[in-house]
Amino acid sequence: MKVTVGNNRFELVWNGQTILDHTEENPMIYVGHGQENVDMYRGNYNISDYVVERRPLKLTKVEEKDGMYLLDFEGMIEAAVKTEDSLCTLDFQKKDDTINRFWFRVAADAEEKCYGCGEQMSYFNLRGRNFPLWTSEPGVGRDKTTYVTWRSDVENKAGGDYYNTNYPQPTYVSTKHYYLHMESTAYADFNFKNETFHELQVWEVPKQIRIEAAPTFVELLEKLSAFFGRQPELPDWVYNGLIIGVQGGNERSFGLLDQTLDKNIKVSGIWCQDWCGKRVTSFGKRLQWDWKYNKEMYPDLPDKIQEIHERGIRFLGYVNPYLVNDGVLYQEGKEKGYFATKADGSDYLVDFGEFYCGVVDLTNPEAYEWFKEVIKKYTLDIGIDGWMADFGEYLPTDDICLYNGESPMIEHNHWPALWAKCNYDAVCESNKLGEVLYFMRAGGIGTQKYCTLLWAGDQSVDFTIHDGLASVICGALSAGMTGCGLTHSDIGGYTSLFGNTRTKELFLRWMEMAMFTPVMRTHEGNRPDTNFQYYEDEDTMDQMARLVDIYTMLKPYTKELVKENSQTGVPVQRPLFLHYEEDAKTYDIQYEYLFGRDMLVAPVYLSEQSEWQVYLPEDQWIHLWTGKEYAGGDITVDAPIGYTPAFYRKDSAYAELFESIREKYGVTR
Amino acid sequence: MKVTVGNNRFELVWNGQTILDHTEENPMIYVGHGQENVDMYRGNYNISDYVVERRPLKLTKVEEKDGMYLLDFEGMIEAAVKTEDSLCTLDFQKKDDTINRFWFRVAADAEEKCYGCGEQMSYFNLRGRNFPLWTSEPGVGRDKTTYVTWRSDVENKAGGDYYNTNYPQPTYVSTKHYYLHMESTAYADFNFKNETFHELQVWEVPKQIRIEAAPTFVELLEKLSAFFGRQPELPDWVYNGLIIGVQGGNERSFGLLDQTLDKNIKVSGIWCQDWCGKRVTSFGKRLQWDWKYNKEMYPDLPDKIQEIHERGIRFLGYVNPYLVNDGVLYQEGKEKGYFATKADGSDYLVDFGEFYCGVVDLTNPEAYEWFKEVIKKYTLDIGIDGWMADFGEYLPTDDICLYNGESPMIEHNHWPALWAKCNYDAVCESNKLGEVLYFMRAGGIGTQKYCTLLWAGDQSVDFTIHDGLASVICGALSAGMTGCGLTHSDIGGYTSLFGNTRTKELFLRWMEMAMFTPVMRTHEGNRPDTNFQYYEDEDTMDQMARLVDIYTMLKPYTKELVKENSQTGVPVQRPLFLHYEEDAKTYDIQYEYLFGRDMLVAPVYLSEQSEWQVYLPEDQWIHLWTGKEYAGGDITVDAPIGYTPAFYRKDSAYAELFESIREKYGVTR
Repeated sequence: MKVTVGNNRFELVWNGQTILDHTEENPMIYVGHGQENVDMYRGNYNISDYVVERRPLKLTKVEEKDGMYLLDFEGMIEAAVKTEDSLCTLDFQKKDDTINRFWFRVAADAEEKCYGCGEQMSYFNLRGRNFPLWTSEPGVGRDKTTYVTWRSDVENKAGGDYYNTNYPQPTYVSTKHYYLHMESTAYADFNFKNETFHELQVWEVPKQIRIEAAPTFVELLEKLSAFFGRQPELPDWVYNGLIIGVQGGNERSFGLLDQTLDKNIKVSGIWCQDWCGKRVTSFGKRLQWDWKYNKEMYPDLPDKIQEIHERGIRFLGYVNPYLVNDGVLYQEGKEKGYFATKADGSDYLVDFGEFYCGVVDLTNPEAYEWFKEVIKKYTLDIGIDGWMADFGEYLPTDDICLYNGESPMIEHNHWPALWAKCNYDAVCESNKLGEVLYFMRAGGIGTQKYCTLLWAGDQSVDFTIHDGLASVICGALSAGMTGCGLTHSDIGGYTSLFGNTRTKELFLRWMEMAMFTPVMRTHEGNRPDTNFQYYEDEDTMDQMARLVDIYTMLKPYTKELVKENSQTGVPVQRPLFLHYEEDAKTYDIQYEYLFGRDMLVAPVYLSEQSEWQVYLPEDQWIHLWTGKEYAGGDITVDAPIGYTPAFYRKDSAYAELFESIREKYGVTR
Repeated sequence: MKVTVGNNRFELVWNGQTILDHTEENPMIYVGHGQENVDMYRGNYNISDYVVERRPLKLTKVEEKDGMYLLDFEGMIEAAVKTEDSLCTLDFQKKDDTINRFWFRVAADAEEKCYGCGEQMSYFNLRGRNFPLWTSEPGVGRDKTTYVTWRSDVENKAGGDYYNTNYPQPTYVSTKHYYLHMESTAYADFNFKNETFHELQVWEVPKQIRIEAAPTFVELLEKLSAFFGRQPELPDWVYNGLIIGVQGGNERSFGLLDQTLDKNIKVSGIWCQDWCGKRVTSFGKRLQWDWKYNKEMYPDLPDKIQEIHERGIRFLGYVNPYLVNDGVLYQEGKEKGYFATKADGSDYLVDFGEFYCGVVDLTNPEAYEWFKEVIKKYTLDIGIDGWMADFGEYLPTDDICLYNGESPMIEHNHWPALWAKCNYDAVCESNKLGEVLYFMRAGGIGTQKYCTLLWAGDQSVDFTIHDGLASVICGALSAGMTGCGLTHSDIGGYTSLFGNTRTKELFLRWMEMAMFTPVMRTHEGNRPDTNFQYYEDEDTMDQMARLVDIYTMLKPYTKELVKENSQTGVPVQRPLFLHYEEDAKTYDIQYEYLFGRDMLVAPVYLSEQSEWQVYLPEDQWIHLWTGKEYAGGDITVDAPIGYTPAFYRKDSAYAELFESIREKYGVTR
């Protein structure tokens, strides 16, 4: 990294590429102050800002000291710039108390593309748009042109938009071969619309901006993940089969397990979200947010868990960091004073949709400790092997007081990582890291290290681009570029509203894609009774037996990828350009991915398709199902259900494994 | 008006009320620069702004000279402040070329209310919202929660929002008894959201801000209208009956006239929009935009006009300032070079919805002259008595060159007034002012003087608040507070899309309200065949005969109101507070109005109502239909169709006239 400083001039160049470029005409920093307006309704935020003042700053003084530069911007902002070979950090200090808005410009090229910013569900390449970064519900529909989005907006303020995500992060990777991370959990908005600069807005002066470069994207992700920390490996048991989403009490849940096994579908675990009891709302089936097993629905749960353990099957539950105000744990927490309060000290209850919950104040070390013990005592200690560690996005910002005294505007985006760490600590302290699997949808800075697995959230049960099957592909790729290389999704999607219901086709297309992700897991959805369920259809179960078997056959390969992710931060699902940097076409592909180095997957994300167009970068590819060889380019392949377009590299060390799949499950023609 | 100046201090006070208040802590002026993004699709604009810089200015120098103050704001803005008794003008000069954004703060009180800003269809009191001021299509539906709005957005980018209007104007009236006018046709956004200030944004440094005060609202409107100029009186013939909207060629149009007269409905004129020929598009029936009579559809139109003149009936047509590229006049204008062009000199054709038109360049004196002569020659000279002077909102802003060299961003909002003046000049030069009636929907600064009548634009054929019957009441009141006291609307509404169709009930409710407006006129709507038409229903025609007769009986009264408007600028349709300033409740009423000093009208703007709640300020009121007396307050009256709640003042000079209406058409019970 080369720094040039001068008279109102600062430049950062790496490998001949200008990354920062402050001049009189093009200042790098703008500061000012604004008054935000933040409305939350059930995790959906309406955020606007009135910018009172915004002005560019001149670099008025430069000092060189201890090998770093101290930059003084008009006495309002100081930046300490340190550089090493391929790393540059700028540590900021605010010298004017009125400043609460900060804009930072990064030099851009017209051809440059950017990726990351957490888990982005609509657009992998961030260029051409701005991305507000604020953890929230991602929206139902997420596309103002669809009926479901419109109705969700009207009925629940919940339609969402392209940038809404459970997991935003102020970190991106540029095709100029650097990543940039802004160390702040304040509301941010990264704007990639301009041809000559990116403008990174944040609602405080950030502690640091970190820019690190590497000659290849693989090396860059190694560096990025070394900085954030890497996800541990998945438990070995997950590769043994499908995790089935069941609910409804002892008889039904364990009955569905037997029914599934009877159909020769390999099952690694049952995920029983209503282990804690249930609650029915107008949205659909919800849970009793009181994180102990429900003795009415699951009277002998610890024994039942023991029983299925003996059969080699795992049991997963559900936890989130809120407690419903009619539950037992809420009472306990309230007596101890472990919930965030209103300014006047009274309860702050959050509306989660026809029920109200306290927010466990994770900034209070005692509350954190208590909630961690709740997880240990009521889940881990009864033998539970994992859980959906749901939510984390609902920290309100109006009139809420936190133990650590921080503004909720700062803590809001911090919450998902706090929540992840709470799970992580509970598991580590129980010596169960590597054995237990919890999966999260909310995320932020720090999620990487503390989250054993992401899941893509609550997709609509359809083929829509912005909220259906397709969106989880984009989500996996962008999370991967942010250092989270392990993710999966609800097979068949989750949200069924306004007449939108899951079809058998959707379920099977999702299932066939899920083979090529780290984990396969089903979900009945929010309205099980009106949506397609696999266990009601013999043919589907026959097809599932085959698909899950293929997933288990892939175990040596997938496990190796997961290990690679834990050791190098190179994600399991990768954009094509990660291994084909020279191929310009690969940079705009967001609905194909490399499942590790050797397998290219092009999921069928639209309905009623019998064939599928695929772009293959130049290599020696073998179509997984037919054995046909391709050298690259645009091709079309047959894509009947059950045969998601997938291609492996001829010289893969796993070629024999892939061939064995074809021999058992391929097509001959 | 009292001015106080000092060290970075400027204050303007009238009658103990602070209007402007510049201090170090609360600067009055912010300047900066921005980069706008303006997308037009068929008159619907998507406008966003990237504000690069925005900073408050200090008052750095004050000079007193020739009885005025010269204020210097950091060498960037100069303001020359003149005051008289109740008038203050600030003339601005830009001293820094980079400035293209200007924000001006006006002191506000929490209880203050503001009105005007042109013709606002959704909110009469502007407080609590911001109002972008840019002439455009007003939108179909104008309420993101309705199906019609959503579909209009998705299909045509045309759903609109609460602030979209054909007639915006940077002028408002405050309950602090002043009006403020910003002399600029640039894009503006008046923000009334803040408790302690209004912030008026405009995309240039405006020539002037004018503030004038008066002890009463009536006097204030006199001053406001004296400044802008007042509308002339309506022709006497309009009061003689209904103007019926007809089309379809000689036989049908004149046939409908006879049919209507046969049913004893008094007709003052027929408005025949397709006198120029027709064009069918997916939207519905449109016209041939070539402003001569169509010899196929109306072979002997001048004779027919003569014929109906002899029967005391007038003939109205249709003109707008665009010419379709397959028309004869377009060829003529093109040869003369009278259309706005692209930067490279080629034709600029605007998409009006499946047909394309040239924009007559009204900034070119020769083009203006030519188009005025077109109006004279092809309409006035064949005996036409008026026309819908439609459109004016579609001046594109990208790549269009105007004769006067001005930016289209400046001329866009100027166009409606230019277009109004072109009509006005044509009529005046033909010595027909006071005989001819043209009615316009687009407006802006200057419309007041040059427009004989407004109409409320193209409402949806329904009872929706933001785009149905109700919206024209709000539109009339806000236009009245901007100096345009003569307006009317399409009886039954116009736009029928996405399954929304006109009912008999809607038509009759609209009809019964229109009695209490200056002009009654029907419209078949955009899709005549699938919407209710009066001539297909005997009962409706019977009811219309009665309603139109009442309108004609009101002639002496209505005519007096119109005269008053032309002499004092006090509008025909008035907000209640105009005459009941002491009554705090009246300031939030936007769906009742005073029809002149003596008649209060509370139109039934919802469907399926048999009675109606009315607020009456303290006075002696007599219910028009029953003669029952009220002293004021919240009351409920029967409101069957045909009996719009209306009350006259007992001591009105027109009491006998109103009584005669009750005697003839009231109810006895």
